[in-house]
Amino acid sequence: MTTLITIPARHGKAARLAAGHSVRIVNTHGQQVVDTWAFTAADLGEFMSMEHSRVAIGRIIPAVGDVLVTNRRRPILTLVADNSGGIHDTLFAACDRWRYELLGCVGYHDTCTDNLAAALKELGLAPPETPAPLNLFMNIPVVDGNRVEIRPPVSTPGSHVTLRAEIDCILAFSACPQDVVPINGLALTPTEAHFEVLG
Amino acid sequence: MTTLITIPARHGKAARLAAGHSVRIVNTHGQQVVDTWAFTAADLGEFMSMEHSRVAIGRIIPAVGDVLVTNRRRPILTLVADNSGGIHDTLFAACDRWRYELLGCVGYHDTCTDNLAAALKELGLAPPETPAPLNLFMNIPVVDGNRVEIRPPVSTPGSHVTLRAEIDCILAFSACPQDVVPINGLALTPTEAHFEVLG
Repeated sequence: MTTLITIPARHGKAARLAAGHSVRIVNTHGQQVVDTWAFTAADLGEFMSMEHSRVAIGRIIPAVGDVLVTNRRRPILTLVADNSGGIHDTLFAACDRWRYELLGCVGYHDTCTDNLAAALKELGLAPPETPAPLNLFMNIPVVDGNRVEIRPPVSTPGSHVTLRAEIDCILAFSACPQDVVPINGLALTPTEAHFEVLG
Repeated sequence: MTTLITIPARHGKAARLAAGHSVRIVNTHGQQVVDTWAFTAADLGEFMSMEHSRVAIGRIIPAVGDVLVTNRRRPILTLVADNSGGIHDTLFAACDRWRYELLGCVGYHDTCTDNLAAALKELGLAPPETPAPLNLFMNIPVVDGNRVEIRPPVSTPGSHVTLRAEIDCILAFSACPQDVVPINGLALTPTEAHFEVLG
């Protein structure tokens, strides 16, 4: 038996994951992007890096079997299963207060950047910075080899991705609160998602 | 009259650039990748960010007129001219000791990461980290919307790119020392490049 842990809508959640163990991230309602980070347990200054992982895997979207690496190019997470349609993003920064200010939002808006910090704080930790996340279920196609588009996810309710830790690490997830552009579906309605730590 | 400053082969060089001024980066011998960073003069913790810039410009390769932004999404550099063929990279991390170790190099190999630190040190500064660089002249096509390939530059000897500062900043350049894969041309021979600060 595993326990399904909630990533509340518009918020974040973190967990420790031992080397060899896996985590399944469930897109419960089907259209929710989950920004995902991994930091090595021994040193939060070493973390999963999209710009290093693209070099390592030879593509911009990780596929089953691909090994994501840290900013020191060490394996940290392997994508071991994915029934979500295989569309994820490694190109876009986590949303932050400046993103929503530029989109015209007035007053406080939840952000993936703040969610990362809040999630780690629950574990008594603080991120050294906000690394570019692995944006699970996020659909940012590169059209004509150059142009990036923002499209709704192709994932379906209950579909999921499984990541295996290659080193003891701290994982953090944010159910992206984006409700201005259709990153989380055309309904512009962020929802909860879930994860479970597997043996 | 401007002064042509040398970026020595396999090494780096930094310069201060005031808001409104421009810098022209010359691919002197035509096949040399120049990793480029910009930090705000007021706070080195704010720097040009590829993952934020891709969101801002809507593509993975900046074109003339595009405004690159910082990790706080503020304009920092505008690409104002480019006669190099328009092929640059925003996807790959700067090379580092771990990259060359994985490529089988034994003993010390120059790296763009070390070159950034050495270049800033000449100005009495230290980078807070190694941001993902704007890899000028670097040819990393995204094939079929996903696969990344390493190809020789399309630029020609003497071709150049001009960047205008939108804020007072510190620029750093590295003539990439990569000589294992053909990033710097099929001859695998890193060369010098040059830059000049324009009025």
